[in-house]
Amino acid sequence: MSGSFCKSLYPFSGEQHRQGLSFQAGDIIRVVQALPGGWWEGERDGVRGWFPSSYVHVLEVRTESNFVFTSYLNLTQSSLNGSGCQSDFDFLSLFNFLFSLSLSLSLSLSFSLSFSINCVTFPTPACMPEQQLLKPNEWSYCDFFWTDKKDPQGNGCVTGFEVLLQKQLKGKQMQKEMAEFIRERIKIEEDYAKNLSKLSQNPLASQEEGTLGEAWAQLKKSLADEAEVHLKFSSKLQSEVEKPFLAFRENFKKDMKRFDHHIADLRKQLVGRYAAVEKARKALADRQKELEVKTQQLEIKLSNKIEEDIKKARRKSTQAGDELMRCVDLYNQSQSKWFEEMVTTSLELERLEVERVEMIRQHLCQYTTLRHETDMFNQSTMEPVDQLLQGVDPARDRELWVRENQTGEIRPVDIEI
Amino acid sequence: MSGSFCKSLYPFSGEQHRQGLSFQAGDIIRVVQALPGGWWEGERDGVRGWFPSSYVHVLEVRTESNFVFTSYLNLTQSSLNGSGCQSDFDFLSLFNFLFSLSLSLSLSLSFSLSFSINCVTFPTPACMPEQQLLKPNEWSYCDFFWTDKKDPQGNGCVTGFEVLLQKQLKGKQMQKEMAEFIRERIKIEEDYAKNLSKLSQNPLASQEEGTLGEAWAQLKKSLADEAEVHLKFSSKLQSEVEKPFLAFRENFKKDMKRFDHHIADLRKQLVGRYAAVEKARKALADRQKELEVKTQQLEIKLSNKIEEDIKKARRKSTQAGDELMRCVDLYNQSQSKWFEEMVTTSLELERLEVERVEMIRQHLCQYTTLRHETDMFNQSTMEPVDQLLQGVDPARDRELWVRENQTGEIRPVDIEI
Repeated sequence: MSGSFCKSLYPFSGEQHRQGLSFQAGDIIRVVQALPGGWWEGERDGVRGWFPSSYVHVLEVRTESNFVFTSYLNLTQSSLNGSGCQSDFDFLSLFNFLFSLSLSLSLSLSFSLSFSINCVTFPTPACMPEQQLLKPNEWSYCDFFWTDKKDPQGNGCVTGFEVLLQKQLKGKQMQKEMAEFIRERIKIEEDYAKNLSKLSQNPLASQEEGTLGEAWAQLKKSLADEAEVHLKFSSKLQSEVEKPFLAFRENFKKDMKRFDHHIADLRKQLVGRYAAVEKARKALADRQKELEVKTQQLEIKLSNKIEEDIKKARRKSTQAGDELMRCVDLYNQSQSKWFEEMVTTSLELERLEVERVEMIRQHLCQYTTLRHETDMFNQSTMEPVDQLLQGVDPARDRELWVRENQTGEIRPVDIEI
Repeated sequence: MSGSFCKSLYPFSGEQHRQGLSFQAGDIIRVVQALPGGWWEGERDGVRGWFPSSYVHVLEVRTESNFVFTSYLNLTQSSLNGSGCQSDFDFLSLFNFLFSLSLSLSLSLSFSLSFSINCVTFPTPACMPEQQLLKPNEWSYCDFFWTDKKDPQGNGCVTGFEVLLQKQLKGKQMQKEMAEFIRERIKIEEDYAKNLSKLSQNPLASQEEGTLGEAWAQLKKSLADEAEVHLKFSSKLQSEVEKPFLAFRENFKKDMKRFDHHIADLRKQLVGRYAAVEKARKALADRQKELEVKTQQLEIKLSNKIEEDIKKARRKSTQAGDELMRCVDLYNQSQSKWFEEMVTTSLELERLEVERVEMIRQHLCQYTTLRHETDMFNQSTMEPVDQLLQGVDPARDRELWVRENQTGEIRPVDIEI
């Protein structure tokens, strides 16, 4: 990679490194040393310094000899993207890569123990503490949503928490759509019932008499019975499935808004306090530089004034140091607070989601139960019809009809003279 | 009843009785003697004579003392109606009435052994031969449709055979209407299937993922399965119920027409031959009267010419007598032929009706079988849904979603100076 050029994806202040290279997003940097471990040396505008390799995108790969580096580059490239937002940083892959190489690199440079993305501070890869998941084997929300990610719909960022919130809102939407689907089924059933009921009243073949006529009349009536069954089905669909879906968590949106604002506020506070840290850091650097300058002056020319100046500069330096410590404390407190709230709130969202899935599962089971019932009730509408059909007797029907309609049973006789 | 007046319902020639009273339909007759046995003496236009009491309608009942007569009148009145057609004559009731009274009436008048209604000759009540039903206990068509009846739709007559034919035509009509009813059911099923199928394709909540998403997708698919079941039902309804109903006896109308014309032709022939008998009877009466006149003339004044005339008149009388016998023979043959054809054809109609009722019964059983099948197939569409619902696992769904959507698992750390 040495000799390659790369383009920065995000701004970097360089503060986290004793010899950090600062740049803006979009700057071109010449790669001087591309070491494994996450920190590269580069040169920009004649200035040399170190920066996290994940902050840049290599423009061309000059050396192919080192397969290891190319693989590594591929690993990091996959976690990069071309917006002004830092994507999720594939720390684990880096970590694994380091181990699998078993490189005994003496990382002669000293790096920071951490660096920030969007004012949230993460450990650097080489200095990653042993991190167990808070809830191992549970794939818990509270373990996997620490980093921001690129907003697919634009140039901004989406926090991990916002991803979780979106999931919740989507879940509610799905529930609503399921209720709509059930509503459509209800309409279909009511329509079917109406048609069956109407046909049941149709006088077709109602003049059929006797045992056959009775069986036919019952067959027609059975359509009205079927209609009843389907109406009951649609009515229960409404009360036992649709309604619960619509009613479940009616305060949902309000709650989500509340969570959203709360976490967002904590992030805002974090941004403010991070800025204060940066400002204090710069102020300290300025004060230290002043002290250096003054000390050099003393080496050239001893003077009381310069000694006084040096004392003053030293005092200011100390004060700046204290201020920096104070700002860092405040920042760390803020971040801890945000961390706690993230854990608590994401676990609450997780719980709500489990509840939602359970609720839906239960009520869809209710749907299938109602369908089973309906089919069974429907079958029973055929029983009286079957019975009457069994009793259909052409001889009996003839008797009934002949009794009613005969014209005369005396047979003709011959004329006698 | 003596002293009452009655109004005649049908014409009566009086020929069947030695002292018959002739009248037209609508004539007013004064009742002289209303004897049980079916023959009353009456007076019209100064002429007295006897007639069948079933031919008249009593205008008022003068005597209430004799409950027996009133009951008898009710019996006969119920078989009377006000058109120019003879209604069915309730012989059996008359017969039973006579026996239950155990009246030992000496029926001093001599009646005919038979009389005709619409040119068909029946035995008179008092002289009724022992008639067993041709097919006892079977209520067979061939036993109960000998007499004509009044056409409810006008002034004419309907033969017993036409009543049987109408029954057949009505039966075919009923079959056709049942097929129409099944067609309507088919349409309803197709409509239902179409709606279910369409809803099955609806993308509502299709973004639900994981095990819950699978269960939901299967639930939606089950509607398409239900639609299939109902389409199959409607298809079988068409091939196994509607079609057979429409196809059964396609030559039916032709056959009925054939029967109708055949029997009607035989009745027509009977009418013709009856007229011939009446004509021959009248001719004989005329010849006998002539003989009487001539014989009386001889008693007044002996003369050769008169003796010759008497011989001629006697010859003509004999010839007229032979002619009458010949006509009666032809008539009786015709009536026998008609009788045979009536028995054969009405038994055929009876057989066809049994077949029709059986066919319909079978196919309506097929209908209920198809409905049972449909409900069972329908139930089975729920099985895969139930299975998948059982497998819904919020923890698994969380894992799947988090794996896909996580933003970063490295937790933030404090800033160190």
